[in-house]
Amino acid sequence: MSHDRTFDVLTATCPSRTSLARIANKWTAMVVIALSGGRMRFGDLRAKVDGISGKVLTDTLRDLERDGLVARYAFAEVPPRVEYELTELGHTLQAPLRALGLWAEEHITEVLAARESYDSRR
Amino acid sequence: MSHDRTFDVLTATCPSRTSLARIANKWTAMVVIALSGGRMRFGDLRAKVDGISGKVLTDTLRDLERDGLVARYAFAEVPPRVEYELTELGHTLQAPLRALGLWAEEHITEVLAARESYDSRR
Repeated sequence: MSHDRTFDVLTATCPSRTSLARIANKWTAMVVIALSGGRMRFGDLRAKVDGISGKVLTDTLRDLERDGLVARYAFAEVPPRVEYELTELGHTLQAPLRALGLWAEEHITEVLAARESYDSRR
Repeated sequence: MSHDRTFDVLTATCPSRTSLARIANKWTAMVVIALSGGRMRFGDLRAKVDGISGKVLTDTLRDLERDGLVARYAFAEVPPRVEYELTELGHTLQAPLRALGLWAEEHITEVLAARESYDSRR
């Protein structure tokens, strides 16, 4: 699909596909959307992404940190304080992921109608 | 996150989250990107989305059809011919998913560098 023909997500061996797999993920989308307001503590982030388990949030944040999208700040306090924020690279991902979230919200009525129609034909 | 406060993907019980889960998915993204050129036969689509298994492609297309994003045309020929194309609703999803694919291609060098740096610190 690429403008830049060096990388192509439709090619199985292209490294860009591993990156697409990370970002085209509902938890990644929700965490990046939740972090768009700025730096947050783990507990606040977990409360904002309603229904995410502690393990899934931990794994998602670690994967995002590894890919350079999220920065982690740990403070040696009692109790320990850990905060997360989008990096400069992570900020470039906000627009496409917010567009995806908005699409889901704006078109859910049509999607639900399509599902009902599909299921009634089976 | 919503402009329209009726639906919010960050709320666990909101139906829009089931829609986000469908579209924020690497296979969905690749199939929608592959279908952007127009109607395609199953075999051609499978060849274009390099590395996808027949089962995953079948499941992805059925889910997209159920959500009203893809139309399926079956022709009573020998051998049977089945074609798929994006619906009008599916076309509205092209821009955000292509933006995600392009992000993956354009930023993979930075992502790979971040991974190397992260892994070397562990």
